[in-house]
Amino acid sequence: MSAFIPTLKTGRAHPHPEPLSGSAFSAVELMPGDRTVVMLDQRLLPRQERYETFQRPEQVADAISTMKVRGAPAIGISAAYGLVLAAVFCDGPRDAFLEVMSTTDGMLRRTRPTAVNLAWALDRMHRTVVRIAAEAPRERVTALAAEARAIHVEDKLACKKMGELGAASVRDGSTILTHCNAGALATGGYGTALGVIRAARDAGKKIRVLSAETRPLLQGARLTAWELHKDGIDVQTITDSMVGSFMARGLIDQVIVGADRVARNGDVANKIGTYGVACLAQVHGVPFDVAAPWSTVDLACPDGAGIPIEERSEREVSHVTLGESEVQIMPDAVRAHNPAFDVTPARLIRALYTELGTASPLDAASLARLAPPTR
Amino acid sequence: MSAFIPTLKTGRAHPHPEPLSGSAFSAVELMPGDRTVVMLDQRLLPRQERYETFQRPEQVADAISTMKVRGAPAIGISAAYGLVLAAVFCDGPRDAFLEVMSTTDGMLRRTRPTAVNLAWALDRMHRTVVRIAAEAPRERVTALAAEARAIHVEDKLACKKMGELGAASVRDGSTILTHCNAGALATGGYGTALGVIRAARDAGKKIRVLSAETRPLLQGARLTAWELHKDGIDVQTITDSMVGSFMARGLIDQVIVGADRVARNGDVANKIGTYGVACLAQVHGVPFDVAAPWSTVDLACPDGAGIPIEERSEREVSHVTLGESEVQIMPDAVRAHNPAFDVTPARLIRALYTELGTASPLDAASLARLAPPTR
Repeated sequence: MSAFIPTLKTGRAHPHPEPLSGSAFSAVELMPGDRTVVMLDQRLLPRQERYETFQRPEQVADAISTMKVRGAPAIGISAAYGLVLAAVFCDGPRDAFLEVMSTTDGMLRRTRPTAVNLAWALDRMHRTVVRIAAEAPRERVTALAAEARAIHVEDKLACKKMGELGAASVRDGSTILTHCNAGALATGGYGTALGVIRAARDAGKKIRVLSAETRPLLQGARLTAWELHKDGIDVQTITDSMVGSFMARGLIDQVIVGADRVARNGDVANKIGTYGVACLAQVHGVPFDVAAPWSTVDLACPDGAGIPIEERSEREVSHVTLGESEVQIMPDAVRAHNPAFDVTPARLIRALYTELGTASPLDAASLARLAPPTR
Repeated sequence: MSAFIPTLKTGRAHPHPEPLSGSAFSAVELMPGDRTVVMLDQRLLPRQERYETFQRPEQVADAISTMKVRGAPAIGISAAYGLVLAAVFCDGPRDAFLEVMSTTDGMLRRTRPTAVNLAWALDRMHRTVVRIAAEAPRERVTALAAEARAIHVEDKLACKKMGELGAASVRDGSTILTHCNAGALATGGYGTALGVIRAARDAGKKIRVLSAETRPLLQGARLTAWELHKDGIDVQTITDSMVGSFMARGLIDQVIVGADRVARNGDVANKIGTYGVACLAQVHGVPFDVAAPWSTVDLACPDGAGIPIEERSEREVSHVTLGESEVQIMPDAVRAHNPAFDVTPARLIRALYTELGTASPLDAASLARLAPPTR
């Protein structure tokens, strides 16, 4: 996979144009002192905005597996913070430290297979681990925390940049469909697809968002509706099954989604249902765009067929759960399928917005042109 | 709308090849004595198989509105039985009887707008009402009950006939996708789309069914899974958002659905989501078939644009409810859309199976060829 670390052309390595914490809400933060990760339990939204604190990397790994935190960039950031917590508990010499880091890396890397940002963030952290392994325990923690926070800040800045690029494509007065949640909750902040929407709004465009509810876990109904409404953006919910009918009636002008992995030829893995929406967009002549940071691009993966698709528990389909409330919607004896992602071929995508520029048409050539030189 | 009553070419007007009641389960029945309608509360399935009894037509109307009973043919049968209950309470002379019948007809007709079978059944009952209006109260009830039961029995026989016709198109060893529930629960028994599946199984074909869960009310997950599993047919559930991905992976060989109204040009209104599935089937070269009794064909309606689409409460989208269990999946302040049906253009449909024959290609000409002579 792509091991390249994009550097933003902002003149400074890690600019902090606004506080990392202190936002109205955040998917994940490393507290000052570098010993505590704070995470919003997104499984409880929109009913409850409950933050949990973790001191152990196992807790972070569990939170990623169980989808307390989700969204490709956000799980990369979370994994990086998880590695910081492991360093806190390790006061051994270089070799012991490297072993602890390696074990923790493996544990975090195994949590979810599809989003490449997870492996990307751990690969990037690994280079710091190697570089500072011989230092004193406190210095190791400080260096890893700085790197993890850099990943976080850069992700948020990347979202702002791709948001500006994507917003140029948004027509004033248009209705935009999005699937799943590619928002502030799925990233270091601001969002990828929802970053485009925020940037369009900030540019003074009047827009309306239709959020497809995104079964089985309903990230569209629960999360996208929650964060856009909180932000004062006009958002309404439809079921996934309504997308075709809304397009046929001319009620959708544009589709923007995020991505969990972009292959070298431009094929995009994203939340299950994305491919169906892309087919329907094609049939109805509705432009279909993707926004994702460069950390989502996996140049080592030739095409969509090479992207591992996570199969999750069938209970996520057979039951609708929110905190203590649960409804079983299927007979006990009937099985359900639950592939969490699908692959949208590049030919169905008008443009990919990244912080390094726009790939349109999206293909191996346009991605190669954007790709920074390998080091 | 079509006012024609199809007569099955079985040699007898209302053959009873098997007991009308006494099946393992039934959406609706008129009890012997003609004073009580028994109805399965389908909102509680699959958790509870609870039958309610009604003596008043208002209760039947309410059950149709609130979708205790649903499915185009089943609500037509229910409305016919509702009219019988009204007659039970009317011992006045001809004019008083006609007025009661007219008021009840209006109340039942207004319950749901999209399925034409409701109006078709009430139109058919009306002709009996007019014919027997001058008879004694008990005779009026008997005549109306006989007509309503005839509608019920003929619907079940129609399902068997279209099932046989459709089953010929089902390949041995294939996987069939269906959307919503067009089964025994939606009809007088046996089912339309699921009738084709039952007939294919009965013809010795090994088949597997994928049931799309069909948000918002989850008839696919709750009802289709329940009744096919009960019947020993291999059924598995997927979310509506998985259909595209399953087709792209070659996991769906054929689609069969029911219909709520077929326009003169062959456009089909059916449960929301059907149109999207039909588009995806077209894109992937998967045959898409419809099964429906002739009572669903509305020759007075020129095309899909003329079919009224019911908009139901947004609470059906914002909450997932089953009996006492309920999960709210959206923020309070965000609005949801809830069109209950969409229209699939005839050109996306390979064949329509009816008890009068198969229309394929489905268009005005093939429907006109099947249509019985108007009287």
